[in-house]
This record gives sequence, C-alpha cells and structure tokens, in this order.
Amino acid sequence: MTQLTIVVDCNDPQYAGEICAALNAFPQVKAVLPADPTAREAQYACCWFPDPQLLVHSPQLQLIQAASAGVDHLPASVFASDVPLCRVVDEDFRHGMFEYALWGVLWFQRRFDRALAHQRERVWKIYPQRAATDYHVGVMGLGEIGGYIATQLAGLEYQVSGWARSEKSLAGVRCYHGEAQAGEFLGQLDALINVLPLTEQTRGILARPLLAQLPDGAALINCGRGEHMVNQDVLQALDSGKLSGAVLDVFPVEPLPQDDPLWQHPQVVITPHMASMAQTEVIVRQLLDNIQRLQQALPLKNLVNKQSGY
Amino acid sequence: MTQLTIVVDCNDPQYAGEICAALNAFPQVKAVLPADPTAREAQYACCWFPDPQLLVHSPQLQLIQAASAGVDHLPASVFASDVPLCRVVDEDFRHGMFEYALWGVLWFQRRFDRALAHQRERVWKIYPQRAATDYHVGVMGLGEIGGYIATQLAGLEYQVSGWARSEKSLAGVRCYHGEAQAGEFLGQLDALINVLPLTEQTRGILARPLLAQLPDGAALINCGRGEHMVNQDVLQALDSGKLSGAVLDVFPVEPLPQDDPLWQHPQVVITPHMASMAQTEVIVRQLLDNIQRLQQALPLKNLVNKQSGY
Repeated sequence: MTQLTIVVDCNDPQYAGEICAALNAFPQVKAVLPADPTAREAQYACCWFPDPQLLVHSPQLQLIQAASAGVDHLPASVFASDVPLCRVVDEDFRHGMFEYALWGVLWFQRRFDRALAHQRERVWKIYPQRAATDYHVGVMGLGEIGGYIATQLAGLEYQVSGWARSEKSLAGVRCYHGEAQAGEFLGQLDALINVLPLTEQTRGILARPLLAQLPDGAALINCGRGEHMVNQDVLQALDSGKLSGAVLDVFPVEPLPQDDPLWQHPQVVITPHMASMAQTEVIVRQLLDNIQRLQQALPLKNLVNKQSGY
Repeated sequence: MTQLTIVVDCNDPQYAGEICAALNAFPQVKAVLPADPTAREAQYACCWFPDPQLLVHSPQLQLIQAASAGVDHLPASVFASDVPLCRVVDEDFRHGMFEYALWGVLWFQRRFDRALAHQRERVWKIYPQRAATDYHVGVMGLGEIGGYIATQLAGLEYQVSGWARSEKSLAGVRCYHGEAQAGEFLGQLDALINVLPLTEQTRGILARPLLAQLPDGAALINCGRGEHMVNQDVLQALDSGKLSGAVLDVFPVEPLPQDDPLWQHPQVVITPHMASMAQTEVIVRQLLDNIQRLQQALPLKNLVNKQSGY
C-alpha cells in the first residue's frame, strides 16, 4: 500500500494532534497538521471546524472526512467543491448525547450550579434537596436521540415528559405533540432539554414565546442546534429570572464569538459543541475504511449529500 | 393539640427558612430561626451544623432532630446532653449519593472540568471523547450505598470495579477485597469514588500511599467522610499531576475553613456536604412523627445511640 498523506484540521492543535497520533500508529499513514509543509500534498483530510482555506492549502484532496456526525460547521468551500465529504457515525453517539443531557440535569437538580458559584466566594451553603422522582424534565424532540434521552432519564427515576411534532409513545414518558399541546408540556417543567432536528419550523424556536411558557426559574439545556436558539431572548429570560440557568453546547455561530455576552454570563455553562463527539478510534477507523473504499472504487460510507446537507 | 415550638438551626438562614416555612404549614406548629426570641421556649429543634450553644439558647429542648442521616457534624454539647437525638433516614438517600457520584464521574469523563475552565477564558477547545464503556470507575466501599452506586454505574455502561474490606459479589462489577488486592484495584482506574464507612482502619486512607497506586491523571470523588482524607496529600497529588482533579463533598473540618487552600484550587470542586441530604418534606414528616411519639411516650424513630454515634 502506498503512503497515505492525511491533513488533520480541527481548529485546535492539541485535539488535531491526538487524532494525528492515532492515525500515525498505522505504518502506511503520514498524518500532519495544516501547518506542516506536507499538508500541501495531502490526499485525505480529517476535519472539525477546519480552516475555510482547507482546499487552497491542500489542493490534492480526494476525500474529506468530517470527525463528527453533523457537518453544518464545515465551510461553504467544502460544500462547493467536488471532493466527496463523509461524516462519522458513532454508535455510542446517542449515549454520549444522553450523558451530556444528564450532566446538565444533575447540574441544576442537585444545585451544582450554585455550589460552584459559592465555591468561588468560599461560601458553604446548602439548598433543600430535590429528589429525581420530584424533578420534572422535558425533552423536546423524540427521534432516535431524544427518545433515548427521555427513556434513560425515566429509568433514573426522573419525571419525564416529551414533546414532538407528531404523536409518539415511549415507556415511562408522558408524550405531547403539536402546537396545541406545547403549552401544557412546557408549563410543568423544571428543566427543558432541546434535541429537535433543525428544520424551517424549528429554527429559532428557543425564543421568547416558547420560554414564556416555562415556569419561572426553569433551566434550559440545548444540545440540539445553535440555530434553534435566539440568543438575545435566552439572555433576557436569564436576566428576568424566567430561566434560572442554561447549559449550552451549540450556538448560531461556532466557535462562539469572543465578544458574545453568553461567555461570561454567571448562570450559563458554555461547552464547545462536544455533546455529540465521536471517539478518536471510531474517527480513525471510519476514515481509513473510506480511504480503502476510495482506492478500491467501492461506495463510501456515510457520504454526505451536499444538497440536503446530511 | 397544644402549640409545638420548634427552633430550626441550620447554619444557613435561607435553608433554615425553607424548613421553617414547610413546618409552619402545619397549623399547630410555630417554627422559628435561632435569632427569634421564641427560640428560648422551643421544645424541639431541627438541626444541620447548629450553633454549639444550641442548648444554652433553647434550654427547654425535649428532642433534637438532625436534618441528616449522619450526625458527626453535631457539636459535643448535643452528645453530652440528656436530650434525645434522632436522625433522618430518607429512602432516597442512596439514590442521592449515586446522583452525586455520577455527576462527578461525568464531570471528569466528559471533560466538563476543562470546558468550564476554558469558558472563563472564552476558549473554545475540545478533547478526544471517552465513551462510558472505555472509562473505568472504582468504588471504594461496597455496603448499601457503595454497592448501589457501583451497580447503577455499571448499568450506565461504565467499566466498574469495587473494593471492600471483605469479599463481595455484585452484578456487572469486578470486585476486589482486602489490602492485598488494593493495588490491582487502584492501578486501573480513571476515577475513584470513596464511600467507605469511617472506622479506625479507614481514617486517613485517602493519603499518599493509596493515591500513589492510582494511574497518573486519575480523578478523586470523595462523598464518604472528611476524615478519610489527608488534605495535604490530596493537594500534593493534584499539584504533581497524580490526580487530574477532585470533587469533594466532605472535609475533616466542616464547614471547610475559610483559609483552606482547597477552596481556590483550580482542579477541585467543593460542595457543602450535600451528597446525602434528605428532602425537606422527609425531614418535616419524621420530625413531626417523632414529636407525636414523644408526646405519646412511644419509642422514637431513628434515635441515635450517643455512645456509638449512629
């Protein structure tokens, strides 16, 4: 097998370096960061928030493998090119999303949000305890991911309700659907988890009209898409006390711009679109498999349709 | 029924106020904070880290109900008195301990520790993902609480090992026991959860000799007892890189003294002995039940043996 030259462009040299190291464990592979002169000759790319100039700096690419399931964050130049684009599908994906949502639920239910704020002031202060059986979590979006999150949370003894556009039925989950039932769903929640798909109907849904239907002091966990959220309305809801806090993994513009007021809001946790990341070994395996398929003129796995975007 | 006067002394006016409010919902109850003049006439007390002068300020007490399962934090004057002391036993207790431990595991496994540190610097930075199936958690202490935590974590797909003084067997958990197997148990862990009982054998166990057997970069979650921990050794392990972080709920002296260096350590989360708190409604129900039992000369529930301390 001839040498495979792979450029790993991940907007973060340390993360990219760890993927490079995993790739370079294979003898026929030379994986490099974009700054390496060899990147110019790379035939393959592995990307996460890559430089928009990726195809200028590495003009010989035959395959671009996104290191993630979603590809919304890739630059327009990738979509405009003829180079095939594939995404990584990690079977642990939905479990990872559940872990993220669960951490957010515990953060609010168990008052870790306040404990960490008090720690900075050296304040020893407790709050009355809320049992899981008495804590009401709502999951918006009941597809493969949302349905899994909702049933897993119910298994951990939480009160769980779910809402979707069309009617669903899930063990242990009170299911609501459609516009007409949204108010009843929202009005009872301690915490709302958004994992809706992004469509023209759901774009901007996390805005004032929806937030106003939550009880005062509810918590928001968004690990759906950044475009679901109207940042200004979420900030207003935090400042008015409508929301007691927010755990946010996705943003309309990513990486979240340096001057965004969300970064420093005391009731907000910002994470870097990490809820849904694939494991390094899965990324490496799927990239090398696709390279072999390309060389053997076999169909690529998880090829992205550049028109539909997934 | 004559009026019941109850002083609620919880080292935190807001927390005490919420318990007062729940008690005052009963028409025959007058619940007050220690600063209220009526506290002098109180026949009953509900306590969490109370003033050591409790019995001086409220000399007519006939019953002291701790708002917690553990009573180690009560002052010596309470143990020296003849006033019966009861503790609260919440059946959700072990689930609450599990929730706390789980939050700590997710904090390290999913790199929330780093995400929150980066947020303060407005840094958007990700790390390779660790799946639960690839993350090894150890539980030290396999009694009712530790056994529950270990099997629940195994149910969430973590690799789980457990260690106890004597041999145990738990579904889905690799069990080790005794001094001889401690090294093998510790040497493989990503995160160590301590829920050992406090005995002369376990006092000070979270010290250099034990920590040295963990892999470099392991995480520590202590929701056992503060006296298990040698603070200086934990700090040294954090600074040397032996420990990547610690989530600590209990301390040799509580509340944790203002000048303790743990408060401001960047890799340490401090929580105010909250892993095991009972729900307010459970505290209120058990206190009022014991008052009724006292008035009817029936045996008190969960009466503490002041010699053994539990």
